[in-house]
Amino acid sequence: MNYKMMGRFIAQTMFIEAIFMIPAGIISLFCGDISAAYSFLAAIAATVLIAGLLWLLCRRAPRAMGAKDGLVCVAVSWIVLSLFGCLPFYLSREIPNFVDAFFETVSGFTTTGASVVANVEALSKGILYWRSFSHWLGGMGVLVFLLALSSGDERGSGFTLHLLRAESPGPNVDKLVPKIRKTAVILYSIYIALTLLNILFLLVGNMPLFDAVCTAFGTAGTGGFGVKADSLAGYSPYLQNVTTVFMLLFGINFSCYYLILLRQLRSVWKDEELRLYLAIVLISIVAIAVNIHSLYETWTETLRHAAFQVGSIITTTGFTTTDFDQWPHFSKTILLGLMMIGACAGSTGGGFKVARVLLLFKSLRRNIRRVIRPNRVQAVRSNGKIVDERVLDNTNAYLAAYIILTVISIVLISLDNFSFTTNLSAVFACFNNIGPGLEAVGPTCHFGNFSPFSKIILSIDMLAGRLEIFPILVLLSRSAWRRK
Amino acid sequence: MNYKMMGRFIAQTMFIEAIFMIPAGIISLFCGDISAAYSFLAAIAATVLIAGLLWLLCRRAPRAMGAKDGLVCVAVSWIVLSLFGCLPFYLSREIPNFVDAFFETVSGFTTTGASVVANVEALSKGILYWRSFSHWLGGMGVLVFLLALSSGDERGSGFTLHLLRAESPGPNVDKLVPKIRKTAVILYSIYIALTLLNILFLLVGNMPLFDAVCTAFGTAGTGGFGVKADSLAGYSPYLQNVTTVFMLLFGINFSCYYLILLRQLRSVWKDEELRLYLAIVLISIVAIAVNIHSLYETWTETLRHAAFQVGSIITTTGFTTTDFDQWPHFSKTILLGLMMIGACAGSTGGGFKVARVLLLFKSLRRNIRRVIRPNRVQAVRSNGKIVDERVLDNTNAYLAAYIILTVISIVLISLDNFSFTTNLSAVFACFNNIGPGLEAVGPTCHFGNFSPFSKIILSIDMLAGRLEIFPILVLLSRSAWRRK
Repeated sequence: MNYKMMGRFIAQTMFIEAIFMIPAGIISLFCGDISAAYSFLAAIAATVLIAGLLWLLCRRAPRAMGAKDGLVCVAVSWIVLSLFGCLPFYLSREIPNFVDAFFETVSGFTTTGASVVANVEALSKGILYWRSFSHWLGGMGVLVFLLALSSGDERGSGFTLHLLRAESPGPNVDKLVPKIRKTAVILYSIYIALTLLNILFLLVGNMPLFDAVCTAFGTAGTGGFGVKADSLAGYSPYLQNVTTVFMLLFGINFSCYYLILLRQLRSVWKDEELRLYLAIVLISIVAIAVNIHSLYETWTETLRHAAFQVGSIITTTGFTTTDFDQWPHFSKTILLGLMMIGACAGSTGGGFKVARVLLLFKSLRRNIRRVIRPNRVQAVRSNGKIVDERVLDNTNAYLAAYIILTVISIVLISLDNFSFTTNLSAVFACFNNIGPGLEAVGPTCHFGNFSPFSKIILSIDMLAGRLEIFPILVLLSRSAWRRK
Repeated sequence: MNYKMMGRFIAQTMFIEAIFMIPAGIISLFCGDISAAYSFLAAIAATVLIAGLLWLLCRRAPRAMGAKDGLVCVAVSWIVLSLFGCLPFYLSREIPNFVDAFFETVSGFTTTGASVVANVEALSKGILYWRSFSHWLGGMGVLVFLLALSSGDERGSGFTLHLLRAESPGPNVDKLVPKIRKTAVILYSIYIALTLLNILFLLVGNMPLFDAVCTAFGTAGTGGFGVKADSLAGYSPYLQNVTTVFMLLFGINFSCYYLILLRQLRSVWKDEELRLYLAIVLISIVAIAVNIHSLYETWTETLRHAAFQVGSIITTTGFTTTDFDQWPHFSKTILLGLMMIGACAGSTGGGFKVARVLLLFKSLRRNIRRVIRPNRVQAVRSNGKIVDERVLDNTNAYLAAYIILTVISIVLISLDNFSFTTNLSAVFACFNNIGPGLEAVGPTCHFGNFSPFSKIILSIDMLAGRLEIFPILVLLSRSAWRRK
């Protein structure tokens, strides 16, 4: 492990974080929340000071780095980001407990949206802005942002590719264009354009500017932190429907948008993951709407709530328009299933990813065929191309790690003696970066009643989910820390 | 697909089933349950008649058979066995609904022990005997029994090996000795000897002979059907402890007993699966005992209940001595985890199998090491030997199929609108061949309140669990039914 290099790298991400805290501080100042403004100032000062020291110590580190270093760097820098990012919450005493403030920040950066705050409307504007902005930054990834800013120097491109892979979700991440820096720039450009479009559509529906910006941040990062206690339930049907559409758009692989820009509409239309994603969304909406329609007055209302919740859960956003914990068990079970599946690879959404579900089904079909015809060589294909056996192998390992971590987490947090459904849905909601679960962590509740131990377990789950497990596992493995 | 051969093969298994119904019929006759005795007579007559016709039609079939045919044969013959095996329940009107009778029989043969009968003490003795005997026959496998009886002719040994593999649980089943027939004889000899020993120990504790035989059948097959409404709660602590020990013994790979007979104690002691199994059992007992000790008067009583329930659940037996649904959530969550893990490969127990858990962890560790040192070739070893990549691949496919089937089943049975914990634990309890679950299917409840649709889904789960999924998936796949 090259500690100097890791130090320099972490210093860079901390500088970026400090810069992004400035607008939140300015908002606090303008709204007259002096305590919040001071805490932003203190947080920025502390972040810059420590980042500066780290930079001075480590600036002469070599640039080349391997896959292992990339994974460890990503894991450590996300933890550091969360530790400094929670300072404004903690110092302003708006979230007076440090573990709570850390949980809230991890929940923000990992785009989970699980909150320990009982009444978000009591938080000041600057704090609310920082909370929502952490979704936006975490959605596409702070390291991808760093890559987009980096100099044209691609000498360490093996390393930067590893960074991109470690932070971007999906079984088979690759560059859109040969240069990694350019890939990062394209991704962020599409991201910013879609976010602005989302804000515009919300403003057209008469949403206040502050609400529109924060809601768009939560939608774009598929996070789910809102500025109202009832999430989106109080907004007009138009605003809810706009959010449904944008949540679903941000759950799609961004390479599809790049292909649209290149006018390769045919390959977008033929994309197997996109088709499966849309099919799952449509079938779930219909199944839930039929199941819940007696609870609402009109079919329009029923469909609006069904579509919103399906979009919110499968993209792992976590906004709500209605208390789905009151729905019949069939609908709730479908939502739990959608929590596991998650969004498309290469989107800002979390979960297991539709692409991996597709690979699992295909590889299972191959195994059955192998039993039936043992002597025929059978390859797994995706969008017509043969899938590398390494990718299949990693998908299987991912499933194993996913199940093992889920089971261990549920057992550990069950020490708090909440109901099994609460525990399972809390772990699902955190690990898949969704936010609300069922029963004691349902849409009308919050995570504040868990013990500090459970909050730390759930924070690890959120990080493991956002970084797709392996960086966290590598971080925890002994051999990662040996010099040779 | 060679239908004639399948027909001959099914006819043979049906003859065996008819022969095994005779003792149950005699018991009914001796106890004066004339209606039950008549229904056994009718069931035997119907089974023999149809088996005879099938035999006449198909006796000239060729003997060679491939892997696919073996799997399809196993799946179809288990369904046929259950269809004819449920006739005594149905004809005697002791279980008047056909779907219920089928569910109960599948539950018996698959050694699940999930019952639709509200009060088992109302059933007649012959019926109770048949119910428990189905556990014993299903535990080691009716086809393995057929293999043990077969002539010395090993021409079709490719096929018979496939049969053995399809019916014996575990990722890497192999012959104990070169001859398959002899392997089957050894397995059944150990099985009979251990069962007799179990009966003896129960009789020493003054259990009535009928109860002892039925309880031993349930223990040996890791089934869980009892003859009392309160399972084993009403028996003495000695009888409960004897059952705990024998449940755990029947959850061990039978090849360990064969090695003991060969005096290779060293390899038994070094067996990684056995060590992990015992470690999981010990840790779970301690964790649960600490968690529940305030519920019981003495530590002896606490440990007795904890050990009994851990043994019952990990071996997938399903006997109970106490209503564990009243335990704190931590203990219940551990039990749910044990339900998934299940017993050792090559035992009579169900579940995912400890051997597969071990392979998953090892293959996950390999994947992490691959990330850290990409250029080093890394093999997965088990008991010092390199594991074939095919076995790892199948283990991963098994996990995928396991999760997919579990999720689909939970969604489908949630249409009955029971609680999520009920549905999840019902599917776990059936798919892993355990029996009792939590809440509405807890130890004091039964499966009778599910809709017929859910009962059929759960029956498929039980069969898929007992036959380790692939035979059922092959049966459902189109290409299995093509002639070429």
